[in-house]
Amino acid sequence: MQEVEEVGRVRCFGGWIITCRHLSRSCQHPMRFAIYLPPQAAEHPVPAVYWLSGLTCTEENFMIKAGAQRHAAELGLALVAPDTSPRDTGTPGEDDDYDLGTGAGFYVNATVEPWKNNYRMYDYIFGELIGLVEQTFPIIDQRRGISGHSMGGHGALMGSLSNPGLFQSVTAFAPICAPSKCPWGRKAFSSYLGDAEADWAAYDTSILIANAREQLPILVDQGGADPFLEEQLMPDALRAACESADYPLTLRMQDGYDHSYFFIQSYIGEHLRYHAERLGVDKVI
Amino acid sequence: MQEVEEVGRVRCFGGWIITCRHLSRSCQHPMRFAIYLPPQAAEHPVPAVYWLSGLTCTEENFMIKAGAQRHAAELGLALVAPDTSPRDTGTPGEDDDYDLGTGAGFYVNATVEPWKNNYRMYDYIFGELIGLVEQTFPIIDQRRGISGHSMGGHGALMGSLSNPGLFQSVTAFAPICAPSKCPWGRKAFSSYLGDAEADWAAYDTSILIANAREQLPILVDQGGADPFLEEQLMPDALRAACESADYPLTLRMQDGYDHSYFFIQSYIGEHLRYHAERLGVDKVI
Repeated sequence: MQEVEEVGRVRCFGGWIITCRHLSRSCQHPMRFAIYLPPQAAEHPVPAVYWLSGLTCTEENFMIKAGAQRHAAELGLALVAPDTSPRDTGTPGEDDDYDLGTGAGFYVNATVEPWKNNYRMYDYIFGELIGLVEQTFPIIDQRRGISGHSMGGHGALMGSLSNPGLFQSVTAFAPICAPSKCPWGRKAFSSYLGDAEADWAAYDTSILIANAREQLPILVDQGGADPFLEEQLMPDALRAACESADYPLTLRMQDGYDHSYFFIQSYIGEHLRYHAERLGVDKVI
Repeated sequence: MQEVEEVGRVRCFGGWIITCRHLSRSCQHPMRFAIYLPPQAAEHPVPAVYWLSGLTCTEENFMIKAGAQRHAAELGLALVAPDTSPRDTGTPGEDDDYDLGTGAGFYVNATVEPWKNNYRMYDYIFGELIGLVEQTFPIIDQRRGISGHSMGGHGALMGSLSNPGLFQSVTAFAPICAPSKCPWGRKAFSSYLGDAEADWAAYDTSILIANAREQLPILVDQGGADPFLEEQLMPDALRAACESADYPLTLRMQDGYDHSYFFIQSYIGEHLRYHAERLGVDKVI
């Protein structure tokens, strides 16, 4: 396999959605991602916003359902949507549950068997993928935004907190705010990291906030009718952590919205505009 | 079953996507449709644009993939997306092919066995559904737009030509322009209508154009990289028919776009604005 193999290309809003496949050294396995290059990228390099998807998603969901390309084309932003885990690795049990293994990498580096060889999404996203994208496409380095949904909202917040300076803007939709405390997070962390909860803290946004070396302001939208709000997402834990640490958070409860891409679609434009303002695109309309 | 049973409701851009189920008297079978009510519909009745989908689609595809709600919310338009056929009718062979039976009603009234009892999508869409929507939701009657994609583009053009005065605006994406001449259309028409090609003419846009009683201007967008362009869609046949009849047609070839919803997403805003101007919404932004 070549470094980055293009497996599909579709025109959208004057730009291109390109689906790529490559052999990941972090995951020791082939990985896929999709990138949207806006029309401006044909003229000059553009900043990129990385989108981390939620449980069960592939690199396709965001591109198909979020309606984000329209905004990205207006703003001159690239969008990068990686897959949510390696697939078909042969890891025992990887396809048994929707919330563990395939489609549920949780953006951590697994440290225990049987996951530790391939489920290294933290290194993959926050190191390998960004480097690969910036070396392969007309993307400006040092001007990066990150966002995500649910498990991917956790990934975006946690990844920006753990890598000061890597991103210049961060937002999230309905993020899992305290994975150490909710069923989805506890199941994933105990499986990928083992039972010692002290080892989970490095990946828990509501814990990382207290010791953040950089205070990149956070914008979060959360649907008020989201069925996962209380048990899994726990935005109150994020709010409390930010208040304790005097960390800048804008948490907006959106009345009546659920956990779907219809919610994301409704606010993705505001999020991308927020990123564009911070990433310094040529012109924000 | 009640006249119209609401089976789902999701908030989107300040309005609601409502999925409905009802017993269709035209199809003698339960049918589903989705309607998007923009925020304005909470204040006063709004005009509706009907969207007819292509082969294999349900009432969901357009709402999930087209990114149309954003525009509809801005413009104050309702969107109505019916299913593309009855489903699970027990008709022999209905699930054998993707382009006949389930998901492939072709917007005609079948006249031959085994289809004629349930596959009556023409009566369903252009009579029953519109009446039902206008009686159930805050929709203005006498101000209707119609559009569609591929098989649904054929349905939109054919249905507006066959029902003068029913619609005040019509557009299409990559429509099947001459179904009597292309493989998809010939298979469907011979199955649903029998082998006498004279009986097909009532459903063929490129034939109906010549005898149109009303010249409602047509806007069509067609992707230049659409793999079905030559064999199935035949926009040249539409262009020739309109030129012969001096019928007002705007046919735009969009370079590099394929047959997907990424193409639709890229131009749906222009189409909905075109409809809004003709349907007289309060304010076109």
